[in-house]
Amino acid sequence: MTGTDRLSLNQATVNKLSLAEAAALCVRHDIPAIGVWREHVARAGLAEAVKTVRAAGLHVSSLCRGGFFTHADPDARRAAIADNRAAIAEAAELGAGALVLVCGGLVPGSRDLPLARRMVADAIAELVPVAQRSGVRLGIEALHPMFAADRCVITRLGEALDLALAFPADAVGVVVDTYHVWWDAALLPDIARAGERIVSYQVCDWILPLPANTLLGRGHVGDGCIGFPPISAAVAAAGYAGYVETEIFNEAVWNAPPDETAATVRARFPLVF
Amino acid sequence: MTGTDRLSLNQATVNKLSLAEAAALCVRHDIPAIGVWREHVARAGLAEAVKTVRAAGLHVSSLCRGGFFTHADPDARRAAIADNRAAIAEAAELGAGALVLVCGGLVPGSRDLPLARRMVADAIAELVPVAQRSGVRLGIEALHPMFAADRCVITRLGEALDLALAFPADAVGVVVDTYHVWWDAALLPDIARAGERIVSYQVCDWILPLPANTLLGRGHVGDGCIGFPPISAAVAAAGYAGYVETEIFNEAVWNAPPDETAATVRARFPLVF
Repeated sequence: MTGTDRLSLNQATVNKLSLAEAAALCVRHDIPAIGVWREHVARAGLAEAVKTVRAAGLHVSSLCRGGFFTHADPDARRAAIADNRAAIAEAAELGAGALVLVCGGLVPGSRDLPLARRMVADAIAELVPVAQRSGVRLGIEALHPMFAADRCVITRLGEALDLALAFPADAVGVVVDTYHVWWDAALLPDIARAGERIVSYQVCDWILPLPANTLLGRGHVGDGCIGFPPISAAVAAAGYAGYVETEIFNEAVWNAPPDETAATVRARFPLVF
Repeated sequence: MTGTDRLSLNQATVNKLSLAEAAALCVRHDIPAIGVWREHVARAGLAEAVKTVRAAGLHVSSLCRGGFFTHADPDARRAAIADNRAAIAEAAELGAGALVLVCGGLVPGSRDLPLARRMVADAIAELVPVAQRSGVRLGIEALHPMFAADRCVITRLGEALDLALAFPADAVGVVVDTYHVWWDAALLPDIARAGERIVSYQVCDWILPLPANTLLGRGHVGDGCIGFPPISAAVAAAGYAGYVETEIFNEAVWNAPPDETAATVRARFPLVF
């Protein structure tokens, strides 16, 4: 259960590689699954992307990402829904375990958090039947509160879960990403409460100091402050037995040779459990 | 209730000034209260500091700060308690409305959040009788989760409140600082639940992008993303009628002429309500 047979490499960790190159990297390092990003799928073309991951024998643990629902302009909100429908179709073709949703920050020009949260809920409600028809599960990801203003007003796992619980379990779940939620005193009870709603488990470490671009402050497992084993144990006890994605946004990691990065990800994986 | 008769200038906003200079600034700008920092009190000497604020006719809305309880070495923990006893004595002499506690991050060398949280609770328990004898209220401040690793493992108002509720109300309360807690979906209910436990209300704005040193990313009220009126209304409804401190850590604000800063603080104050 804790061997590298559950390891997935999220493509963002080696984001200078094309999908074909990232897939080949996984094969070289005996990593059985990959978290795929839409920008790379678009570059390859969907049919070619599907062929690439199938030929490599890789499971697609997640497609990143849908979301960004919060817009003042109704046309922009409709465009976001259309884009998310396309993402659901791609996730279905790729056989992805989940479509990860980064829901969006404050509505531009507004300081109204409840308004932004209502827009998120409304958008997800609209996507639920699409997801159900396609057999794709949407994964609401709580982002760290430092991204609340500009990227995601859903800031805690418990909040993501309360939102998910308003919808059918076959359509909407939650993503547990250690980087975003490790600090939360309610994390372990919220994971237990999430149970079967957990559709993705992503890991990377919280390192200090934060870089100027706080999006890029993530570290290899073991390089930072997060105590992974209690979180992983809670995720397992909740019933999640799927892939564990390593997803690292970090300039230095991106500049490292990809084979070195993949080897480090593999070597550090046991520290997660 | 919403006039500048409730305004307090936290000294950190003009941190290049001595206590005497900051007090004179408050008088010049008709600001009736000041939040004082211990480093400035130490520089002036306690007796002189007390004389300065009394002569200026200023109320001391808070003393910043005690805390930093989380240490691996028992001697270091004892030293922290001794330092906090001294801070309580200073707060009593200054007639401060509260001693603000920044409780400390992870124990150095450890990734154990619950351990750090237990150390915080144990330290506060030890300080409660000291605070009660001195007539000083300790204010547990929840810091933004981005500081959980290195400064404060208490990351939400609700968590600070649950901790405070374990102790007598005359000894332990909570600090509501908009910068740290604005993002929390449970903020308004937690403020209502806090009621008389609110011992300090501090305001400043969340501005983007975050600077390289994330400690210094705070902005003047109105320059950022926070919707203050619903928070202020909740704080008032909870029963808090004390001073409202503007506390801004920001390199550019520090480099601005202090009279300009004080004038801006005053001019922006109505936006809080």
